[in-house]
Order: sequence, then C-alpha cells, then structure tokens
Amino acid sequence: MDQWTVYLSGEIHTDWRERIQTATKSAGLPVGFTGPVTDHDASDDCGVAILGDEDKPFWKDHKGAQINAIRTRTLIGKADVVVVRFGDKYKQWNAAFDAGYAAALGKPLIIMHDPALTHPLKEVDAAALAVAQTAEEIVAILTYVIRGELVGNAVRAAAE
Amino acid sequence: MDQWTVYLSGEIHTDWRERIQTATKSAGLPVGFTGPVTDHDASDDCGVAILGDEDKPFWKDHKGAQINAIRTRTLIGKADVVVVRFGDKYKQWNAAFDAGYAAALGKPLIIMHDPALTHPLKEVDAAALAVAQTAEEIVAILTYVIRGELVGNAVRAAAE
Amino acid sequence: MDQWTVYLSGEIHTDWRERIQTATKSAGLPVGFTGPVTDHDASDDCGVAILGDEDKPFWKDHKGAQINAIRTRTLIGKADVVVVRFGDKYKQWNAAFDAGYAAALGKPLIIMHDPALTHPLKEVDAAALAVAQTAEEIVAILTYVIRGELVGNAVRAAAE
Amino acid sequence: MDQWTVYLSGEIHTDWRERIQTATKSAGLPVGFTGPVTDHDASDDCGVAILGDEDKPFWKDHKGAQINAIRTRTLIGKADVVVVRFGDKYKQWNAAFDAGYAAALGKPLIIMHDPALTHPLKEVDAAALAVAQTAEEIVAILTYVIRGELVGNAVRAAAE
Amino acid sequence: MDQWTVYLSGEIHTDWRERIQTATKSAGLPVGFTGPVTDHDASDDCGVAILGDEDKPFWKDHKGAQINAIRTRTLIGKADVVVVRFGDKYKQWNAAFDAGYAAALGKPLIIMHDPALTHPLKEVDAAALAVAQTAEEIVAILTYVIRGELVGNAVRAAAE
Amino acid sequence: MDQWTVYLSGEIHTDWRERIQTATKSAGLPVGFTGPVTDHDASDDCGVAILGDEDKPFWKDHKGAQINAIRTRTLIGKADVVVVRFGDKYKQWNAAFDAGYAAALGKPLIIMHDPALTHPLKEVDAAALAVAQTAEEIVAILTYVIRGELVGNAVRAAAE
Amino acid sequence: MDQWTVYLSGEIHTDWRERIQTATKSAGLPVGFTGPVTDHDASDDCGVAILGDEDKPFWKDHKGAQINAIRTRTLIGKADVVVVRFGDKYKQWNAAFDAGYAAALGKPLIIMHDPALTHPLKEVDAAALAVAQTAEEIVAILTYVIRGELVGNAVRAAAE
Amino acid sequence: MDQWTVYLSGEIHTDWRERIQTATKSAGLPVGFTGPVTDHDASDDCGVAILGDEDKPFWKDHKGAQINAIRTRTLIGKADVVVVRFGDKYKQWNAAFDAGYAAALGKPLIIMHDPALTHPLKEVDAAALAVAQTAEEIVAILTYVIRGELVGNAVRAAAE
Repeated sequence: MDQWTVYLSGEIHTDWRERIQTATKSAGLPVGFTGPVTDHDASDDCGVAILGDEDKPFWKDHKGAQINAIRTRTLIGKADVVVVRFGDKYKQWNAAFDAGYAAALGKPLIIMHDPALTHPLKEVDAAALAVAQTAEEIVAILTYVIRGELVGNAVRAAAE
Repeated sequence: MDQWTVYLSGEIHTDWRERIQTATKSAGLPVGFTGPVTDHDASDDCGVAILGDEDKPFWKDHKGAQINAIRTRTLIGKADVVVVRFGDKYKQWNAAFDAGYAAALGKPLIIMHDPALTHPLKEVDAAALAVAQTAEEIVAILTYVIRGELVGNAVRAAAE
Repeated sequence: MDQWTVYLSGEIHTDWRERIQTATKSAGLPVGFTGPVTDHDASDDCGVAILGDEDKPFWKDHKGAQINAIRTRTLIGKADVVVVRFGDKYKQWNAAFDAGYAAALGKPLIIMHDPALTHPLKEVDAAALAVAQTAEEIVAILTYVIRGELVGNAVRAAAE
Repeated sequence: MDQWTVYLSGEIHTDWRERIQTATKSAGLPVGFTGPVTDHDASDDCGVAILGDEDKPFWKDHKGAQINAIRTRTLIGKADVVVVRFGDKYKQWNAAFDAGYAAALGKPLIIMHDPALTHPLKEVDAAALAVAQTAEEIVAILTYVIRGELVGNAVRAAAE
Repeated sequence: MDQWTVYLSGEIHTDWRERIQTATKSAGLPVGFTGPVTDHDASDDCGVAILGDEDKPFWKDHKGAQINAIRTRTLIGKADVVVVRFGDKYKQWNAAFDAGYAAALGKPLIIMHDPALTHPLKEVDAAALAVAQTAEEIVAILTYVIRGELVGNAVRAAAE
Repeated sequence: MDQWTVYLSGEIHTDWRERIQTATKSAGLPVGFTGPVTDHDASDDCGVAILGDEDKPFWKDHKGAQINAIRTRTLIGKADVVVVRFGDKYKQWNAAFDAGYAAALGKPLIIMHDPALTHPLKEVDAAALAVAQTAEEIVAILTYVIRGELVGNAVRAAAE
Repeated sequence: MDQWTVYLSGEIHTDWRERIQTATKSAGLPVGFTGPVTDHDASDDCGVAILGDEDKPFWKDHKGAQINAIRTRTLIGKADVVVVRFGDKYKQWNAAFDAGYAAALGKPLIIMHDPALTHPLKEVDAAALAVAQTAEEIVAILTYVIRGELVGNAVRAAAE
Repeated sequence: MDQWTVYLSGEIHTDWRERIQTATKSAGLPVGFTGPVTDHDASDDCGVAILGDEDKPFWKDHKGAQINAIRTRTLIGKADVVVVRFGDKYKQWNAAFDAGYAAALGKPLIIMHDPALTHPLKEVDAAALAVAQTAEEIVAILTYVIRGELVGNAVRAAAE
C-alpha cells in the first residue's frame, strides 16, 4: 500500500496533531492526515453563518453539527486508521461518538489519553487496537505498522 | 412488524429505563427492550471476577469492558431502534460511543437529555432522528412510530 | 418462506391499501403488510406534538419527518417487497424517496400508478420489477409470487 | 483527502450547476463534479435512439430511463457527497428517487430548494445533512467542509 | 439452528425436487424448501396475464421474468443453502444465473448434474461446495450437514 | 469520474470485444476494459498446466475453473459496468453465471445477444439495464452514459 | 433478545462442549448451541462417502472439507457469539480459520485455551473479546452477558 | 485493472516471499505486494517496545498482536488476492486466522504448502481458489491470472 490515510479525531486545544504530523513528515512516512475542522468558533458557527440564523440554540447547534458531519463521516469512512485523542477538559462526546462510529465501520482504532482517564474510557479503549498516551507513541505505531521499523524503545525513553 | 426491539443505552443512575418500560407495557405496545448490564459494580468487576485478577487497573478495565462489549454490540446490532440517554453526571463516553456505533450501523437513533447538555451533545444529536428530554416523550415516540397514535399532546402537557 | 412482509408506500388519499389487504386476506396469502402512518394530520404534527412547538415551519416539518423516518426506514428495511403507489395529486416526493431508498437496499420494488404518470415516473419505474395500475394487479402479483398461482387473467378482465 | 467528488442531481432548467462549478473552480477547491445527462431531449430519447423504436410510450421511457440509470447509479455510488436540487416546476420524482437512493447508501446529502417547497419536501430534507436555498450556500458548505474556511457570512449577505 | 431453508433452483422437467423433499421429510430433517414457480406456462405467461398483453415477445418475456425475479431473488436471499440442478435439455441460463447470484451473496452452493455436463459447467461447479449427481446425494449431504449423520455409503450403494 | 472500467464477459469466438474496444478508443472515451482470459485452450488447461495433472476430467476442470475465478471475480468486483455477450453456440453457462454474480453485486448490467435468444435469456435480460444486439449499440450506450452524447441514431442506421 | 445462539468451534477430543451445554442448561440460560460435526471419522469421510471415492488424498480431503464448510459457514454466519477452543494436540488450523472467519464477520469472539498456548495464539487472542481457560469461565461469561448476573467469583474459586 | 495488490501471509522463515517478488518483477507483472512485518523479534516486541512493559506475558503478547493487527487487517482488506503459506514448523495459527479472515471478506485465496500438510489444512484449502506447493507455481498463477499467459508447463518442469 503506497499511501496510508489516518484520521485524527478529538481534542483540539493542544498541539498533538501537529506533533504527529511533523514527526511523521520528518520520518518520511507515506501518510496523509485528515480530521475535523479544528477552528472551534468556525465549527460552532458554520451552520448559521452559511445557512442563516436561528433563534433557538438547539437548531443553531444542529445545523452546524450536521454540516460538520458531512466532513467527519466522509473522512472517517475513507480513513485506513482512526486515532481519537481525549484531553482532560470538556465533555468530548463527539470524540467518543467518532470512536464508536469508526469501530462499527471496522476501522482500526487507536485511542490516546492520559492514564487518569482509563476508567471512564474503558469501553472506548476496549474497541481499540492500541491505547497510547503520547503523540510520540502514535508516531512509533505508525512507523512500525507502515514500515515494520521498531523505533519504540527510543520513543518511550524520550517520553518518560 | 409484529415486534420491535429497542436498545436503551446510557445513564444508569435514574429510573428512566423503568419509566419507559412500564409505560410501554401499560400501553400494550409490542416492544422488547434490551440494554447494557446496569449493575454498576458487576459491570466494573466482570472481567476480573470471571477471568482472574489483574494488577494494573488498565487491564482490569479492559477485560471487563470487552466482556460487556459481547453483550452491548450484539444487542445494538439486533435492535430496531437505539435510545441513548445522557444524564448530568459522569463522563458517559460509553453512551456517546454507543450512539456512534449505532449511527454507523444505520440504526434509527433517539437521544435523550436535558437542554443544558445541548451544546456539548450537538454532534451526537445531529445523528439522531429525535432528541427527547423525558421518558414520556420516548414513550410517545414509540407509540406513534409503532401504532400511528399521537398521544403526544397529553404527554407534553403532563411533562411540563 | 412461511410469511412475506410487504411495505405499502405512497398515496394516502384513496383506499388502495385496504383493497390490497382485504383481497390478500380473502385469498389466505401469508402476507403481513406494513407502511407509513396514513393519518395525514398526525403525520404532519407528530414532531411538535411530542417534542414541543417550533416557531419556524421548517423545524416543525423537520421534527415530524424525522420521527416518521424512524418508522418508515425501519419497516422498509425489514420488508421483503416494497410497493409504492403514486396518485394524481400532490408532490409525493416522499413516495419517490422511498422508492429510491428501497432500490438502493436491493428490495424488489413494485410501482403502482395510472398511465398518465408514465413519463414523469420513468426513472422510478425503471428501478421496479413490476409496474401496475390497480390494486387487483398487485394482489395478482403477490398471489403468483407467493403461491405460483396465476389468477391474473380473471383479474385483468375484472379491472378492464 | 486530496479530491472530493460531488454528484449534482435534480433540476436541469436553471444554471445552478454552472454557478456551483464556476465558484468552486474559482476558489480552487479540489472537487470533481458529476451528475446526470442534463440534455433533456437526449435523456428522453436515448433508449429508442440507441436500441430501437418502441410503439408504446411506456417502453420508450423504460429503455431510456434504464440507460440513464447506468450513469446515475454508478456516479451516485462513487460520490462523496450528493446534492439534490428541486426547482419550482415539474414532478421531479427522479430527484427524490436519487435522494432516497443516496440516503440508503449512507451518502452525505445536501438538499437545495426554495422555502416554498419546505412542506412537500420534508421527508427528503429530513434525510439531509444540510438544506440550502442557493448555489452560493452550497459553495460555502463545500468550502467549509473541505478547507475548514468559513466564508458563509459574506455569502449570505450577498445572497440576501 | 432449528430450521434450515434450502432453495432448489433449475430444471423443472423431472421429479428431483419431489425426491429431495420426500426423502428429507421421511428423514425428519428440519428443512423448509423454496424455489421458483415450476409451472412452465404460468412462469412464461405471468407478466402479460397479470399486467396486460404485449405485442413484442421481448417485452412479454421481460414482464414475466421480472415478476418471477420478485420471487426468486427474495427466496434466494433468504436461503441458507442453494441447490442448482442442470438437466440435459434447454439452455438453462436462468439456473446458471441463479448460481452466480447465490455465489455473490456468499450462499453455500450445491450443484447437481450428470457427469456429461462437467466441462461446460466447470465455472459453475468451481463456485460450489458440493457437486452431486443424484437427489439421494443431496439428501445425504443435507442429512450430514444438519445432523452430522453419515448415511452416504448406503445412499451411494443405492444410487449405483 | 475520470475513468470507467467495463468488464466484457461471455462469448469468445467472435470479434465483439475488439469492435467495442476499437470504437471506444477511436471515440476517445475514458474506458478501460477487462475480461476473462479469451484463449480457450489456456483457459481450459491452466489448472493442470500450473498445478499438475489430474486423472479425472472433473478435477482438471475444477482446478482450471478456480484459477480462472481468481481473475474473473476480482475484475467483475472492480468493474463499473458489466457487459455479457451470448453467442449462438455452446452452453455458455459461465456467461450466465457472471451475469448473476454481477447482478447480486449491484453492478449495472448490459446483455448482448441476437433476438433469437430472447426467450431462453429472459431471466438474464430481466436483470439488465440494457439489452443490446450489436457491438455498435454497446459503444453508443457507453458514449451516451459517459459523455451524454447521443450518437445512437447514426449507429442504428449503420447497424440495420 | 429472547434467545442467543453460540457456535462452539475447535477441539473435539475433550468434553468442553458438553460441560458448557450442561451448565448452561442447568442455569436455564436461553442459549442454543451450534458447532461443527464432532464425529472425527464422519467429518473426514463425508466427502467420499456421499459423493464417491477419490484416488488422491487431496481430493478426498477437499470434498469432505467443502461439505463440512456448508455447515460451519452457515452456522457461524448465524451465531451471535463464536467460541473457539484450542487443545494441546494437533494442528487445529480449522479452529484458527474459524476464528478469522468469525472476526471478519464482526462476531463477538471468545477464545479458550491453556496459558501454555498464549504466545502462538496471540494473533487469535488479539481478535477476541474474552480469552478463557475453562468451560466454567465460558459459562460465567454467558451468564453475565445474557442475564447480567456475576457468578464469576464462585466459578473461579471452583476452577482453581 | 492496471495494478494488482497481493498480500503474502504466513511463514516467515524461508525466502518464498522474495522468490515470488523477484520472479514477478522480472516478468514485469503489475503487482504490488504487501504482508505482515516479517522481522520476528520486532513483531513479538512491538507492543511493549512502543507502549510500555508488561509483567504478564499475556498482555505483552496482546499489545503486540493488536498493533500488528492494525497492519495486517488493513492490508488484507485492501488486497485483491491473498496468498497464505504454511511451512513445516510452528503452530502458524496466525496464518490460518488470516486465511479465515480473507475468506470471510470474499478475497480470492491461494494456499501454499507441502503435500505433507494436506490433511490438517483441508478446511483451509477448501476455502481456496488454488492450492500450490512452490513459489514458482504462485508466480505462474499470477502471470496467468493477470496476463492470460500460460507459462505453467515450463514452471512445473522446473519444479519437478
């Protein structure tokens, strides 16, 4: 397979996507990354900005979330691997929804979160083929899965 | 269709399942309900209780969550309709995961939650065919969908 | 196959469903019929009646149509055969939508309409395994398909 | 995803397709558009022109519509997103059929029509992830969905 | 599995179906049999008899064959096992079509024919899980497959 | 869609494939053609030639037909459109098998044969979106379906 | 769900199936069990016994294994849960094949084996939702999954 | 089809992959090969090397096998043809698992092993479209299947 497509779902307030993408590019891995719109305001406002205002917050959210779904469901459906990151803030139900959606499509799933979230995320983790804590581990998994090269020891040393 | 099967996912600390089941039975609707194991301790402990202790909490959770998945994925896969309830406590990522899982399988989805959760649940709601607030509304939806009888006005009056 | 399930979609202002069901029952055919809610007012109002009023007509319609979809998509998905009737009034886009939906699911499709509608319905008819004009023809098709008995000559004589 | 494919179904008597395609090209979006044959006469006559005359109008229509289906079903099946436009004339049952067909395949669906058609299109709209009124809104949705850029406010201002 | 459904496709001019059904019933096997309409004239005429005459033989055949397809595709789709018998007369392209149709659906396929037809049927046989010559062998296969009882030796002795 | 893939199944003793391919290339249509191995001897012998002799003709045929199936099922599965040609000689059950296989996969199907075969091919034709007699008609269909250009009248004049 | 179907694949030389079935019946669980033919000689000989002798061992095995596949693939396809037991003897490649087959179908998978086999079975275990050592653990899992009752502690105590 | 993708599963201790790839490249066949990571130590250690140590061998194996599954399931899912080689050592349950997994996905399957393994591999072979003994035979199959060229006689002479 010449090219892999990896969808990066979940938390949008830290630089985990950039770290994965930068390291993957440096390593020369043949990976294209996709993901949701990560501009929080745009993501919230897209429905009413494009299709007109709503009085009720419910419909504002509904219109926006459905437009976002055009992107997210299409890209998850085309991904080879889906990575879902949970941060330490917010409800992040969209991230868990994406994980369930990807799992039902049979996509290989990698979940990324701190150990503090292990218990509440146990059902999500149970559907994953890997549960990682750091962006470096994700890169090491992709490097191994795509090239068969095991750079993990170094990665873990650096991460500890 | 003689018999409908409705899976009730999500919150396990209030009596919403009982209220739906009791009212549905009173109405004589041909509905069988399924759902996850709602005994919180059993659900947490099933892995190690059945398959042996684990030192690390991660593996305890993993074994338990995977055994629970035998039940939940089987029953969601067989359901005609999936209802997912979000309460006001806990992370409830398993509920959002179930919603995503059911959505990808093409199951008609009903989400139930208080208006206060509208914004964080917008992506989940966007995948639903109905967003309800009360068990009575769920019963009214089922009554209408199965029998074509619209008892909703009374229900709403009672619920307000 | 002991029992067939036939979904009757489309026009709700004439008695075609009753004629098919009565004749099928008289003939003792093992067929269970399903279909949309045919109470026009209930079908229009179900969304706001159950889930609360809307100021905008769009959202009133949206909520109602999505609740109806819980029923229609579930029942079309479970049907062995889908019959769609087009009458001479109204837009009837929901009927054409159902036909497309059933076609993509691979359901055997029977379309029923007057010859006057042949040209505008040509794309819909092109997806059908039979195009009938009368309820009696539908009954004759079901009788033949299920029992292998050809009562069609009599039926056509009666219908002409 | 490097390239998106968008199928434009429905009305063929206004320039909505050209407006979408021109604006999308100007914006440099990586979108390829597909759609039905929009030459009305060719679409009507293709069956008998290629495969020989028919005495009955029904078979003329049937042969033509089935040849058109070779194109439309193939292209809808390959599309990432399906847009269906309803105009103010004609029955347009093929447009509603395409919407149902795309919905059953799980394609993200955008419906485009004037507010006057909201009520008769409610079942079709209920299956969509966006309901737009103008070509400019469609372009704004594609721009947002593909690039994450929200140019919608300007677009709406221009459209109003 | 309490009950098996076996579809018997193909040749309609000998008593192979009856022999299989009688022997299976005698043996008390939990099998329900389905198949096409085996009344040759009814099968040829059903289209025009029910839906009206046609001047061209092509359309007479087309209407009839499509009505038959309502039955055959539905029943093949519901079968657990598909048996296709080729006799020594006629083109029997419908039998080969059914075999291909069942193969693509992943149905276990048993082909039954005389050794004289081995070469022209090689592509069909290559998709089968068993190639039998006699009704008695089919019964022996069903007996073994359903009950695990091997009565084959006696059967072969009787058949030789 | 930039490129179409058309699988040409069936008769191998006339030049219909070449005529379609030559005319399609002349017209500059973006079509790639695939099909079975059309070297009759190679097709018959491939099993034993590659994997070793067999004493019984059945197993010689079986090994060869299964190797051919690696090619044919893969290529049919990847085709956008499947054309199946029936000639006036031989059993051609593999052609009918391919038609059934393609039909069950939902592939748009074009059947090509002389009118003399209409009755025995009626079930196969009933699954097709077009039934043609000549290679020129196939080319006209592809030209129309891919480019929307109707060159059919000239084609028919030439063919008559 | 009123009734569960559990397929028991793998080792046929110990009484693990009986222990599971007896205990499940005692507990009154609504489970129907299916599985391969466990009569080793019948399983080996069924092909030639029913369909005639073969000179080459390969074809004897081939005919028998394909007849067995009619049963095993049908029953695995209908199962809610698939249990695969590996013993300490023989190659048991059919057991691993069944596990892979069930995994690709998305069936919840329970693998049962002694700890000594953990390393060579790691890829198989990695696809499972539970890895058990004893029949009693399997019964405890089924009891929990179906009824939500956690009898595991007692079971483990008894098993140790 | 311009390019074929062939997944090479199974034995990693002989040079069969290299022989197939070298000969295929020499022949100029348009085939891209994929397969598991064949570095035995990396394959065993990848879980703990990347995601951290485990005290229990079971979890070490589990983490590693699940990471390997990200690669193997993705690549098998994208392959046109799956070849599985069984050697004369080790349990090789992962090879049989891959064969079952590929079979359930409907992938054309070629099994490669010495005649000594025929009996224990009979269920696996029964799902294959070809059973080969040597890398040269695999190359001959690919050459025939892709180009229609029968170089098998020479190959067999060389292999004997």
